[in-house]
Amino acid sequence: MTFTPAIAEQRFVLEHIARIAELSDEATPDLVEAVLEGAGQFAQGEWAPLERIGDTVGAKWTEQGVVMPEGFAAAYKAYVEGGWGTIGSPVAFGGQGLPVSLATAVIETLGTANIGFALAPMLTVGAIESLVHHGSEAQQQAYLPRLATGEWTGTMNLTEPQAGSDVGALRSTATPRGDSTWSIKGTKIFISFGDHDMADNIVHLVLARTPGAPAGTKGISLFLVPKYRLNADGTPGEANDVRTVSIEHKLGIHASPTCVLSFGDHDDCVGELIGKEMGGIVAMFTMMNNARLNVGLQGVEVAERATQRAVAYARERVQSARAGAPSRNPVAIIEHPDVRRMLIRMKAQTQAARALLYYAFGQLDRANAGDAAAKARVELLTPLAKAHATDIGSEVASLGIQVHGGMGYIEETGAAQHYRDARIFAIYEGTNGIQAADLVGRKLSMDNGATLLALIADMRGAAEDANLIRLIDACEEVAQHLLTASTDDRLAASYPFLTMLSTAVCGWLMEESGRIAARSDGDPAFLAMKQAAARFHVEQIVPEALGLKAAALASAEALYAVAAEAFAA
Amino acid sequence: MTFTPAIAEQRFVLEHIARIAELSDEATPDLVEAVLEGAGQFAQGEWAPLERIGDTVGAKWTEQGVVMPEGFAAAYKAYVEGGWGTIGSPVAFGGQGLPVSLATAVIETLGTANIGFALAPMLTVGAIESLVHHGSEAQQQAYLPRLATGEWTGTMNLTEPQAGSDVGALRSTATPRGDSTWSIKGTKIFISFGDHDMADNIVHLVLARTPGAPAGTKGISLFLVPKYRLNADGTPGEANDVRTVSIEHKLGIHASPTCVLSFGDHDDCVGELIGKEMGGIVAMFTMMNNARLNVGLQGVEVAERATQRAVAYARERVQSARAGAPSRNPVAIIEHPDVRRMLIRMKAQTQAARALLYYAFGQLDRANAGDAAAKARVELLTPLAKAHATDIGSEVASLGIQVHGGMGYIEETGAAQHYRDARIFAIYEGTNGIQAADLVGRKLSMDNGATLLALIADMRGAAEDANLIRLIDACEEVAQHLLTASTDDRLAASYPFLTMLSTAVCGWLMEESGRIAARSDGDPAFLAMKQAAARFHVEQIVPEALGLKAAALASAEALYAVAAEAFAA
Repeated sequence: MTFTPAIAEQRFVLEHIARIAELSDEATPDLVEAVLEGAGQFAQGEWAPLERIGDTVGAKWTEQGVVMPEGFAAAYKAYVEGGWGTIGSPVAFGGQGLPVSLATAVIETLGTANIGFALAPMLTVGAIESLVHHGSEAQQQAYLPRLATGEWTGTMNLTEPQAGSDVGALRSTATPRGDSTWSIKGTKIFISFGDHDMADNIVHLVLARTPGAPAGTKGISLFLVPKYRLNADGTPGEANDVRTVSIEHKLGIHASPTCVLSFGDHDDCVGELIGKEMGGIVAMFTMMNNARLNVGLQGVEVAERATQRAVAYARERVQSARAGAPSRNPVAIIEHPDVRRMLIRMKAQTQAARALLYYAFGQLDRANAGDAAAKARVELLTPLAKAHATDIGSEVASLGIQVHGGMGYIEETGAAQHYRDARIFAIYEGTNGIQAADLVGRKLSMDNGATLLALIADMRGAAEDANLIRLIDACEEVAQHLLTASTDDRLAASYPFLTMLSTAVCGWLMEESGRIAARSDGDPAFLAMKQAAARFHVEQIVPEALGLKAAALASAEALYAVAAEAFAA
Repeated sequence: MTFTPAIAEQRFVLEHIARIAELSDEATPDLVEAVLEGAGQFAQGEWAPLERIGDTVGAKWTEQGVVMPEGFAAAYKAYVEGGWGTIGSPVAFGGQGLPVSLATAVIETLGTANIGFALAPMLTVGAIESLVHHGSEAQQQAYLPRLATGEWTGTMNLTEPQAGSDVGALRSTATPRGDSTWSIKGTKIFISFGDHDMADNIVHLVLARTPGAPAGTKGISLFLVPKYRLNADGTPGEANDVRTVSIEHKLGIHASPTCVLSFGDHDDCVGELIGKEMGGIVAMFTMMNNARLNVGLQGVEVAERATQRAVAYARERVQSARAGAPSRNPVAIIEHPDVRRMLIRMKAQTQAARALLYYAFGQLDRANAGDAAAKARVELLTPLAKAHATDIGSEVASLGIQVHGGMGYIEETGAAQHYRDARIFAIYEGTNGIQAADLVGRKLSMDNGATLLALIADMRGAAEDANLIRLIDACEEVAQHLLTASTDDRLAASYPFLTMLSTAVCGWLMEESGRIAARSDGDPAFLAMKQAAARFHVEQIVPEALGLKAAALASAEALYAVAAEAFAA
């Protein structure tokens, strides 16, 4: 078994990065510990053992619906019965009302144990958020209690074949049925857990156009479409007109069925409007922002798991004497400098991504409590958390293969699965390129740049390392340049700038973590590793990001010096 | 079809980077053109169409031996009959005796068309090299003519379960049979094309220990072990005692059977000694150095193919209006700045890796002709070419997925296959970490650093861009530092230094390529793209490598600040 819940890390970031003591009186250290330990044991006992079958067998399409691999339905039931879904949900609907940051730790643990499986609860969280913020009281009463427990799961239905990154191009329609419900028609693709056999109902949140709606995102409305319509007593009744056409054959996350869903083949797909007509894009962003942070968290999850697997292998695999050492006896490969460099990089990047995510979730908790500055900050941080943490997920999973050498390329070893799984996180919920565009577009110009400059001021106030200070200065210089740059120049520079700024935030949080570890009591090995990882991050990873400054200041002209046709010459 | 032979690129690097006119009177522009065009047509017609079945069906183990997917045997026969294997082989054994650089272009084309399949001829080249340099005249007469045509294929048998990067730990044995032949016994793993049904015989080159041989690499000898023993007339006769135990289930290159071979189960495996007893490690490096350059070339191949596929998709896929543009009509995604940034990066990195490889092969041709300085230079360049070009292969394949968005994660699209295939190149024939160790160990200290400093002087003499000059200066500073650093410090810095130095060499060759393109006549689109790619490389990729200087100057102490156990804390 290569899965151990990252409890010491979670405790550390909840206490020092999210600062959970400020967020809730109920989230006492004892309760936090109980949640982390309990979720860890549950994930270790019930979900982690299914990771391999999730990959090798995977979800299967049948005429009767999608069938999960053996063991998944029972393990999901155990999740529902354990109450693991209810932690962050509102008390009014059967939830425990604890900080999102703490619920996040549970999702992280489940995802580290079995990342494809954990998409089911993760998407349910998005559906809950949408209904909490935009649903009518009747909708909330009817759906939230069962979504909060996970008895029912949620999905997000945005993408259509011609409408990927361009959500506004969608064509699905909703027509009034004359009884306050709507008739939904259209085909959606890339719907994670669009169908499965683990829950009593599936609550699809579907973007569609109402009659006469304008083109683009302005004309979109959000609808709730249950797989099974509700009986008068609220229990699932007859099947709605939603058909699972097929599931995709993907590079990874085989446990997660990625469905093509057809709504209204028989003109009998009944949906309810959520929020206002034409208000779909706002409601969608409620789901989406939450989902983006949770996808960033998936970067942390896959990185954590890949690191654990690589560390275990490197401590066990004996090969060659250490160069320059007096003894000619072969040593565990973790003793070789370049292997150790890879491992410490994996640790540092994983910890940095986790710090970024829990910092963002901590700001989200403050925003939910009414803190306007925190709200602005989490909005700014969302593209960084989504894109940079998922880039780290792929990088760390790749290093995980490399540490294994030839064995890393053999599927049975398990390292390759992480590499395959990780590759989607940079794509879904808005590609990382879309995140970068969001950063240099809406987020950079929030408050005329004041939100970003406030973050830079906070970082500068704390930074001690000369390279970190240089990187923060470089971020400010680039930001000032981009604020007045042309749209093309901003977009051309967007990705390098996103990586620079994300690395600066990670460096700031890691440097601070190192200082905290130095003055903390606790497990000496954990605290020593935290300091070593922090030092490596600031000394070696931060300077790399400075190398991106030239690209972040370059103009788009270099990209358009040749016509599109010349790329095929 | 997304495969087009990269003929314009190959012509450019053969003429300007390998400078083939200096290498051979016979390799006239007309002959070069005929070889490139002919190989391109052959690969397009016969090998590229089998790429997908090679991945989805792959090589299969059976009791009777490994069976290749339908069509492979016929396509291989066509390769033999077309004489594509003979280009670089010695005239004395039925080859055409043309420069290795030109034979390389043929392998590149075959590998771009079908990268798993192309391992068969690639490994055969290694076997030929070994026999040319170390075989007896009788062995050369018996084996070389059929290896040169490809009627028989070759394999390299180094790795054993306990002997991966540490080749010296191998345990296979060779015992004299009293008739000048040897009895071979042992198990070898990770043997590419260790068995298949496409050729009349397979010539295994096997490292083993003779009785009383010392431990480590000094005690290793190289043996030739045919799958079928030769009859008196030289034709394949009765089966040798070599058994294919199994083949691996791998992340990618499914068309290439990765075999576990058992030699001498019945104590009747007959082998011949190649070269001197205990001379195995020298003979092995003859195979290995060639193979390392060819693996670097695989990085170019997969990058080329991934780029072609992404460019085709990006020109075809229409999504969203261009931000800031007057028209609100959606455009092909190649028009969006961040997509174009990815594509130009793919072009620049692929061209840079190709330039690095053909420069190295050009030096190899000069070395083969007796040029001692070229021999030293190709030895220095080999770890760069192997490691850096394969890192580029993985990076470009990953960008290829990203350009496709969600479609990139669907296996049927094809982009994911390149990503899976590419991941082995950084591992086999010596992991990239082993290459980095070779660079800072044997290669850095060649001639007390003079070989490296001569390269740096050549680069400095040509470089014009300020960032490129800074990078070259930084490489020299790091090299001087490492020359006197401790073994630990050298190894800790090895990978960052390898990437810096490789990028400097690529930047040097790309800047020069841009200048040549600016003054050349020819296809305007190709020449414009070459200049744009060169500019992007120097302006944006070179500065990134400067960001690695801190890591390349850091001491190993940071890596060993914690004990190995703390990595699991």
